[in-house]
Amino acid sequence: MLSEFKGGKRSLEDMKEKLRDLPYKDLGFAKVDNHRALRRGVAEVIYGPGKTPAQIATLIRELHPHNSLVLATRVTEPSFRKIRPLVKGIPVVYHAEARLLSVGQGRKEKGKVAVVSAGTSDSSVAEEAAVTAGLLGSPVVRVSDVGVAGVHRLLDKLALLRPAQAVIVVAGMEGALPSVVAGLIEAPVIAVPTSVGYGASFEGLAALLAMLNSCAPGVAVVNIDNGFGAGYLAHEIARRRSGKV
Amino acid sequence: MLSEFKGGKRSLEDMKEKLRDLPYKDLGFAKVDNHRALRRGVAEVIYGPGKTPAQIATLIRELHPHNSLVLATRVTEPSFRKIRPLVKGIPVVYHAEARLLSVGQGRKEKGKVAVVSAGTSDSSVAEEAAVTAGLLGSPVVRVSDVGVAGVHRLLDKLALLRPAQAVIVVAGMEGALPSVVAGLIEAPVIAVPTSVGYGASFEGLAALLAMLNSCAPGVAVVNIDNGFGAGYLAHEIARRRSGKV
Amino acid sequence: MLSEFKGGKRSLEDMKEKLRDLPYKDLGFAKVDNHRALRRGVAEVIYGPGKTPAQIATLIRELHPHNSLVLATRVTEPSFRKIRPLVKGIPVVYHAEARLLSVGQGRKEKGKVAVVSAGTSDSSVAEEAAVTAGLLGSPVVRVSDVGVAGVHRLLDKLALLRPAQAVIVVAGMEGALPSVVAGLIEAPVIAVPTSVGYGASFEGLAALLAMLNSCAPGVAVVNIDNGFGAGYLAHEIARRRSGKV
Amino acid sequence: MLSEFKGGKRSLEDMKEKLRDLPYKDLGFAKVDNHRALRRGVAEVIYGPGKTPAQIATLIRELHPHNSLVLATRVTEPSFRKIRPLVKGIPVVYHAEARLLSVGQGRKEKGKVAVVSAGTSDSSVAEEAAVTAGLLGSPVVRVSDVGVAGVHRLLDKLALLRPAQAVIVVAGMEGALPSVVAGLIEAPVIAVPTSVGYGASFEGLAALLAMLNSCAPGVAVVNIDNGFGAGYLAHEIARRRSGKV
Amino acid sequence: MLSEFKGGKRSLEDMKEKLRDLPYKDLGFAKVDNHRALRRGVAEVIYGPGKTPAQIATLIRELHPHNSLVLATRVTEPSFRKIRPLVKGIPVVYHAEARLLSVGQGRKEKGKVAVVSAGTSDSSVAEEAAVTAGLLGSPVVRVSDVGVAGVHRLLDKLALLRPAQAVIVVAGMEGALPSVVAGLIEAPVIAVPTSVGYGASFEGLAALLAMLNSCAPGVAVVNIDNGFGAGYLAHEIARRRSGKV
Amino acid sequence: MLSEFKGGKRSLEDMKEKLRDLPYKDLGFAKVDNHRALRRGVAEVIYGPGKTPAQIATLIRELHPHNSLVLATRVTEPSFRKIRPLVKGIPVVYHAEARLLSVGQGRKEKGKVAVVSAGTSDSSVAEEAAVTAGLLGSPVVRVSDVGVAGVHRLLDKLALLRPAQAVIVVAGMEGALPSVVAGLIEAPVIAVPTSVGYGASFEGLAALLAMLNSCAPGVAVVNIDNGFGAGYLAHEIARRRSGKV
Amino acid sequence: MLSEFKGGKRSLEDMKEKLRDLPYKDLGFAKVDNHRALRRGVAEVIYGPGKTPAQIATLIRELHPHNSLVLATRVTEPSFRKIRPLVKGIPVVYHAEARLLSVGQGRKEKGKVAVVSAGTSDSSVAEEAAVTAGLLGSPVVRVSDVGVAGVHRLLDKLALLRPAQAVIVVAGMEGALPSVVAGLIEAPVIAVPTSVGYGASFEGLAALLAMLNSCAPGVAVVNIDNGFGAGYLAHEIARRRSGKV
Amino acid sequence: MLSEFKGGKRSLEDMKEKLRDLPYKDLGFAKVDNHRALRRGVAEVIYGPGKTPAQIATLIRELHPHNSLVLATRVTEPSFRKIRPLVKGIPVVYHAEARLLSVGQGRKEKGKVAVVSAGTSDSSVAEEAAVTAGLLGSPVVRVSDVGVAGVHRLLDKLALLRPAQAVIVVAGMEGALPSVVAGLIEAPVIAVPTSVGYGASFEGLAALLAMLNSCAPGVAVVNIDNGFGAGYLAHEIARRRSGKV
Repeated sequence: MLSEFKGGKRSLEDMKEKLRDLPYKDLGFAKVDNHRALRRGVAEVIYGPGKTPAQIATLIRELHPHNSLVLATRVTEPSFRKIRPLVKGIPVVYHAEARLLSVGQGRKEKGKVAVVSAGTSDSSVAEEAAVTAGLLGSPVVRVSDVGVAGVHRLLDKLALLRPAQAVIVVAGMEGALPSVVAGLIEAPVIAVPTSVGYGASFEGLAALLAMLNSCAPGVAVVNIDNGFGAGYLAHEIARRRSGKV
Repeated sequence: MLSEFKGGKRSLEDMKEKLRDLPYKDLGFAKVDNHRALRRGVAEVIYGPGKTPAQIATLIRELHPHNSLVLATRVTEPSFRKIRPLVKGIPVVYHAEARLLSVGQGRKEKGKVAVVSAGTSDSSVAEEAAVTAGLLGSPVVRVSDVGVAGVHRLLDKLALLRPAQAVIVVAGMEGALPSVVAGLIEAPVIAVPTSVGYGASFEGLAALLAMLNSCAPGVAVVNIDNGFGAGYLAHEIARRRSGKV
Repeated sequence: MLSEFKGGKRSLEDMKEKLRDLPYKDLGFAKVDNHRALRRGVAEVIYGPGKTPAQIATLIRELHPHNSLVLATRVTEPSFRKIRPLVKGIPVVYHAEARLLSVGQGRKEKGKVAVVSAGTSDSSVAEEAAVTAGLLGSPVVRVSDVGVAGVHRLLDKLALLRPAQAVIVVAGMEGALPSVVAGLIEAPVIAVPTSVGYGASFEGLAALLAMLNSCAPGVAVVNIDNGFGAGYLAHEIARRRSGKV
Repeated sequence: MLSEFKGGKRSLEDMKEKLRDLPYKDLGFAKVDNHRALRRGVAEVIYGPGKTPAQIATLIRELHPHNSLVLATRVTEPSFRKIRPLVKGIPVVYHAEARLLSVGQGRKEKGKVAVVSAGTSDSSVAEEAAVTAGLLGSPVVRVSDVGVAGVHRLLDKLALLRPAQAVIVVAGMEGALPSVVAGLIEAPVIAVPTSVGYGASFEGLAALLAMLNSCAPGVAVVNIDNGFGAGYLAHEIARRRSGKV
Repeated sequence: MLSEFKGGKRSLEDMKEKLRDLPYKDLGFAKVDNHRALRRGVAEVIYGPGKTPAQIATLIRELHPHNSLVLATRVTEPSFRKIRPLVKGIPVVYHAEARLLSVGQGRKEKGKVAVVSAGTSDSSVAEEAAVTAGLLGSPVVRVSDVGVAGVHRLLDKLALLRPAQAVIVVAGMEGALPSVVAGLIEAPVIAVPTSVGYGASFEGLAALLAMLNSCAPGVAVVNIDNGFGAGYLAHEIARRRSGKV
Repeated sequence: MLSEFKGGKRSLEDMKEKLRDLPYKDLGFAKVDNHRALRRGVAEVIYGPGKTPAQIATLIRELHPHNSLVLATRVTEPSFRKIRPLVKGIPVVYHAEARLLSVGQGRKEKGKVAVVSAGTSDSSVAEEAAVTAGLLGSPVVRVSDVGVAGVHRLLDKLALLRPAQAVIVVAGMEGALPSVVAGLIEAPVIAVPTSVGYGASFEGLAALLAMLNSCAPGVAVVNIDNGFGAGYLAHEIARRRSGKV
Repeated sequence: MLSEFKGGKRSLEDMKEKLRDLPYKDLGFAKVDNHRALRRGVAEVIYGPGKTPAQIATLIRELHPHNSLVLATRVTEPSFRKIRPLVKGIPVVYHAEARLLSVGQGRKEKGKVAVVSAGTSDSSVAEEAAVTAGLLGSPVVRVSDVGVAGVHRLLDKLALLRPAQAVIVVAGMEGALPSVVAGLIEAPVIAVPTSVGYGASFEGLAALLAMLNSCAPGVAVVNIDNGFGAGYLAHEIARRRSGKV
Repeated sequence: MLSEFKGGKRSLEDMKEKLRDLPYKDLGFAKVDNHRALRRGVAEVIYGPGKTPAQIATLIRELHPHNSLVLATRVTEPSFRKIRPLVKGIPVVYHAEARLLSVGQGRKEKGKVAVVSAGTSDSSVAEEAAVTAGLLGSPVVRVSDVGVAGVHRLLDKLALLRPAQAVIVVAGMEGALPSVVAGLIEAPVIAVPTSVGYGASFEGLAALLAMLNSCAPGVAVVNIDNGFGAGYLAHEIARRRSGKV
């Protein structure tokens, strides 16, 4: 376009008009999108709830050719069974416990991510975090069932956690585990409250508030049950270690 | 009265009438009151807020002669300075950090009470609990500044806590300490959330919810900042050990 | 290990390295675990929700040989029917109203536990508390349907409550019963709010708040519908009377 | 006006025009106002907060000539001292504990109102209720300091409450008193939660929710600390007994 | 018993012992129960939720012989179909829209009750209120679909409301109707918030808060969807007019 | 009526009686109703939830003859299938995604309405808004999937939004879109929070609060998921441009 | 810049580089800013809280030369007294009740704005709305003290409200007024909840929720006490009538 | 100690006894503490609120000799003036806007931290974050006053943000800025809600919820107004880039 202008094929007026809108439209849209695919190896992540299997399948078919990794979150097993025949030829993988659907794999990184969970009931959210970080390219170590009511179980696993560049801590009920972990290790802690519990857990509110009030520095919190968000962020932190970002 | 009736000094009608109301009034009122003083060494505890120094002084003068221990809670220092001249001759003691005013002392018991607090900002509430239990007659051990962000500090003090018949755990912010303590010791844990914190602590709500959702069995919770209630209950539990109650 | 070191089979460096991690691992883990089984007659209690019947059966098979009592809470009847064939040979008992599954029985204690409930709708939670305390070894007395709207019904039962070393009070709706009970008896009161009610009960929040604000000293609160927690704690309190803990 | 029309002094057009607006304006406004004064002996009640002493004084001067009783609520003592010189010649009375300012008195009724309060800290709200009902014309009986933690104190006073046509029950903290009272007496109960308490009382929310969930039929609730509203409504109920309304 | 004592058949000691417990037990229990049936024509009201059809049937069979009116609330139609064959010979009536089951009828009173509802979606709660008041004995007038968004519809019905001794106002959503009604009529207003609405109605919380904050005096509030409570209380108020209570 | 009075066919007494009620009844009722149909081209909108298909059909048959447009909101597809045979001969249209049922069409206006939505999960609410505004007569432009996490997508569409007289912005989760839109365009913004999200979205509360706190002037908010209300209000604003209202 | 490029003074590379950032920077920034001033006659509105008088004065001096109207909201009187000497020569006006500081005046429009308020305590917020709309250029009519507890007062003023193109309704407590107004007039209603009230008004939450749940279509809501936002939006709506926007 | 054992000065029994407790005490405490100082260049951070100036001064004197950086948060200016004379000879620095007191400086790192704030009222929290990260050793870039209501201002500053390894985004009111920033840049975003706002901001709750619900991946949240926590965590993330951690 600039060449056309210089060569006289576009008038100054026309050029001004184009430039007023252009950056937001073509340049802007394309730039951000490409930028995203380039740096993350992941395009728009597809948020499953509220979408039909057909809609998810269409999005996969559109995104797959241009991205090394495509992710759809919170996809139920029945939904996956309807999606699969609609995306024939695309190597979709379903991670049942994590309720994630993926195609492909991000570039392997060196910075490790650890995923710590308090109880076995938190495992679905923990898996969503671990699978997400793993697919994006971070090596992942899992440590489960180390709730604060038996703090010795956690102490026993510290050696596993110490090499991690980012530690995801998943807990429901009183949500105390991130504080204890952050007091024992040095890496940033991403706390994930879960809706595990009953009564005054108020669907995860108790754990959420506890984590936001952590007395240990180095803790930040994502939404209740948001394993994907924690896995994504932990990967973003861990891969900084390469010094390439 | 029964004698009067038998002796014919009271009619059957009159007797029936009296009996309809009586037990709630004289018998009832007196029984409970005496029972209370007898078994607890403490009369009505005076709740300070909303009472004038003069009102508190009047209550002390009324209760002191019939009770080995009189307690007034949440009495500010300026208020105490106004109360003292109004209760001349009565050996009132003011416990500044605990904001407690006391006269006398309960019967010494053998069952120990431990008071554990997370941070120095929780010390006023912890003191209220400790002084209350102590005045009621329980030997008290204090362990402070053992928040969950440095769990080793708590592990280091376990030997102090293990002999206690009841353990009070005071914590603000994320309120995680009771779960950790209850996982390490055997005695009943009375959890006291404090209003220490800011933002999403919502004046102690975060700590309260966390404590109610404790994943460790053996924990019960009192109101936010209710050091007195915790001290009272812990004393009640600890003194069971004597086998005399 | 110490012998190896003294005998020269381990270097000072190696010994230092081992000691840095050791206590958290072997010693720590074993110590706490054995301690728990020893003193409580109950291993890890299995929290039912979020676990498959197969998972619960596996845990029972693992825990049963080393523990005199194994407990699983919030087990539905259909779930129990799937668990039973998976634990053949193990004498599992299902307590339908309490939704508890148990194997074995704790050591009989002398300190009594009383369980008071406000209405017939609270009976499931009350049963969970009573069965828990009973299995752990405390003699249990039940008093039901004594809501505050007919306070005479409670007064009539006081003689049953007075010998108890710990009183569990279960109530939904306005949650007023614990205050009334605590004003009439001397033993510690464990208050259990239930989700019984509608509208502004907000799933038990009204009862929870009321109990936390009890004007009677000697009351502590557990989570909404947490009959197990109350039964466990009441047993812990009541058995102090033996003077053996 | 109708006469003028019939007499030809008003045209049909003019009459139609007037009638379109009139009932809302002159007739409407006047009717309601007169109706109110007639039946209640009380004009618009002046809500004190957010008004200057001068504004309150002006309203008193306007309302006093046409009403046997004028009431201003939540008037602080300093405010009253500024109002008094501005309403010279008008026999204003200030009820300090109730924070009410009154001129005059409603017509004496026969139906009695009882005001029951849980603790001495609730006395300001209880007084606001009692003084309001009394000024409106209902004979009032006060029963105070009968909190549920000592239910015998209430039982002792039942004879005082039974003759009342409406019973106001004022309580903070756990707000349990209205349920207990409503289970013992027959008259309608107006429950007033107060902001007395701390921590999880959340400025009266705990008491409010408890009262709304009362398991005893015959209870209705007004806003937190709304002694005036309770006194007004109780008077309205009690005076029905005359059969004249 | 008194006679036995006077006649020497009971010792003074035995008599004292009996009297300590008696009033709470036999006398107390019986008195209150009889008192209730006598004055209200209604025994214990059976709260349906959480009870099996068999339990409800048993309660009906026990209560029916001694009470002119028996009521069970929140009974679903399928539940009723199971109850009916279990109470053969008892003339049970099922009020489908009100979800009430009744046997018999209270004594006819003269004081009228009006039930006003905002929208057709509120009709179930309004019917529960109206049927309750009617069965208890109050003549009932119903005014429906007069929401505040068309205030003329209400104004049009004022003549119907004015003779009532108590007015029940049922509304969901913004819950504004009680304030408008209370500003137009003189009788006490019982406001019933309903869970009708969506989003920020938060299951009736919006209407509840609005009603508690009514700027019109003479309004009190019951729990969300509590039509029974409102009908009961309105009847209690309206029948005062007879001057017999 | 006035003529009858002047002509002596009505007495002064009768006339007074009539006038007391009249304006609220005939005049009032009729005036408002006609006024509404006249100015809005829409009668009472039928709120679907809580109404049977038969009730909705009856209302349609009553309203259709007198109104150019009849609307029923939140009608499910199964409900519509039951309604259709009951309104034979009436040209009902069902808008599936918007869950709206309509008959007829409002007068075409010139002022445009734009409907912007953040994600595809918000499309049902956005459609309800768009269809409502369109049926009422406003030309509607839709812009979807322009969430704030990719602000360039919105910038690209500004030219579409600028001609609108009112812009509806529909968003769930963090509800940030209305602030961004209001900072870029000049027209009034009607913000609609949706219940799309999970965890700490608390069914749309997060989006609602965010929108109420918008730092951009020119934004007002309707209830969570209230697409109809937004469409109605936007139409009301947009059609002002004609200068005829 | 384009000329420089065409003339060869800038390389293609340099030009591409510049264009990548430019629209967001110079063009973007300037465009939006000028656009804003042009179309609204008001620059950035200064939000007073959290700013020192010196900061506010600096902003006024910067904005005044380029804008016909400058507004600062929530400026206290003491703050204004400190600002005045710092902006000598600039004709600042302080609107005490509205807590607004203004310089200049927007272009006079024809579309009217009405501001209706429920009680005298709401007058500060109502004035903020009215003064804002007036300064922006809309003719404003005020109607005050027409709370729903005396609906006749509102009916009496309808003629004043009907000509308005937008109606602002300000109310605290139960927040019912917007629903009633929206049912009586045709123009869009902007509802402003105020923090007037106590207890269960929860600082305006009750009014806010009520307004969001308005059963009358045509109502949208702004933040609690946000008079400025309502005035701004009402002006934006009203001036559409000119057909010039 | 190990040497003593090997040399025979300690028995095996004695050694076993010591080792059981030791690691938690001497080794444990020292290890963690040294570890902390070593890796972070910062000892225990002193949380100011609830501590007297004398207590803070004592802690500074104790920590300063062993740490390159000592930090005290939320220290008011009057408090600082009292602390200074108590720490003579120690080079304390007071950062007034950030309310931070510091001694020394952490090791300079290369990974950059950016601090973005929405409005000038958020500057105190933003400064706390920026000063914290800077003192810990991260180069910090500040971008302020780029609220979402003028998104062009943010777009203009993207080049400043892109080199950062971690971006802190500080915003009150609707809290929308983190979502917009996270959609435009690649680095992890630490979102800090502030209590700036009024009404339905509920002291920062609105911003907190919005941030937790961010639709952009790569965002985590700290407590309301927790600038310190954000600065600490961002530093922890940014310094990973060195590959040395």
